[in-house]
Amino acid sequence: MIIAIGLYQGFTALDAIGPYEILTYLPGAEVVICADRAGVVDDHNGLVHLRVDRTFADVPRPDVLLVPGGPAAGEYARDNHPIVDWIRKAHPHTTWTTSVCTGALLLGAAGLLDGSRATTHWAFYDELASYGAHPTEQRVVTSGRIVTGAGVSAGIDLALTLAADIAGPEVAQTIQLAIEYDPHPPFDSGAPSKAPKAVYELAVAALGD
Amino acid sequence: MIIAIGLYQGFTALDAIGPYEILTYLPGAEVVICADRAGVVDDHNGLVHLRVDRTFADVPRPDVLLVPGGPAAGEYARDNHPIVDWIRKAHPHTTWTTSVCTGALLLGAAGLLDGSRATTHWAFYDELASYGAHPTEQRVVTSGRIVTGAGVSAGIDLALTLAADIAGPEVAQTIQLAIEYDPHPPFDSGAPSKAPKAVYELAVAALGD
Repeated sequence: MIIAIGLYQGFTALDAIGPYEILTYLPGAEVVICADRAGVVDDHNGLVHLRVDRTFADVPRPDVLLVPGGPAAGEYARDNHPIVDWIRKAHPHTTWTTSVCTGALLLGAAGLLDGSRATTHWAFYDELASYGAHPTEQRVVTSGRIVTGAGVSAGIDLALTLAADIAGPEVAQTIQLAIEYDPHPPFDSGAPSKAPKAVYELAVAALGD
Repeated sequence: MIIAIGLYQGFTALDAIGPYEILTYLPGAEVVICADRAGVVDDHNGLVHLRVDRTFADVPRPDVLLVPGGPAAGEYARDNHPIVDWIRKAHPHTTWTTSVCTGALLLGAAGLLDGSRATTHWAFYDELASYGAHPTEQRVVTSGRIVTGAGVSAGIDLALTLAADIAGPEVAQTIQLAIEYDPHPPFDSGAPSKAPKAVYELAVAALGD
């Protein structure tokens, strides 16, 4: 089973590494990190430099395709970045096509979300809707073979959901225990509906920087 | 404020990238990813290849020092890997010295945990105790200027705790909302006390591989 994680310049590191850490535990999984070209791919802070050896052309038919988000995803979606073409051509053959955060905009640009329920980072619901999707305020949204996750950290919940779909609940629970995923955030402000208004406004400003 | 994340061959990617994604949001933070030597550092799966440009010698006095875990951490702790010396010399000058998962064993080897409460991945409590620490079954343990986190995914909770200590609760909550950290694991098996016995045994076997 080939699981391809497709990167691009300016991706958000946790969007990719959260699911990666879970999916690599799946029995029989070959996880392939790939990009348009081989070489170094920088994250959106310009501080994480990932050397990527495989290209989209090397992995045209993954069983599971995962696209992380990043501040540049919206622009890449509009400009038909090569990752959009990869998604479009690979999707008919995948078992699961998935995204984290604004990676959903790239699925949208590939024409995969028209008329479907999907999710993305809470600040990008309108942009997601512009691709015909029905934005859904939910951590993980499964719509047929397409699974979309909410912002950044939601990739962990998405990957555990996928792990259970692929290998059964016992394997997913084992992975959860192996990575000790027993979350205890010190605050309860991880969703717009839960955060104080001042925090919400600060987050909107921080994301706009 | 310099925040140094010290890597080594075979680190666990999520241990580092979870906190990284949070700490880079801190106002005035300069996050520096560093290692013994400049070059490519591979994660424990050998699939993530991080190009690291800065060395421990470049960052001798970070304000915040963070060490991720990895399956090799125990061996590096026993063998006095260069990261241990870096931790030992930097610690007297830090504001916070921190670890995720088995990164705590490296703090232990540096002599930082003798007689202190600390935590690590649940499978490594005995090894942690061999450094004089009092292993504590808690997501994040603060003992003076030393903050240790439980296994792998606990780095996210640790970094939010640190963010609040450094910049106040409103900033920490803003970061939590920005990364949409509103966890909803599909199962509740992220701690040994919560997982079914069969899952616990599978996880022990998986970690031993």
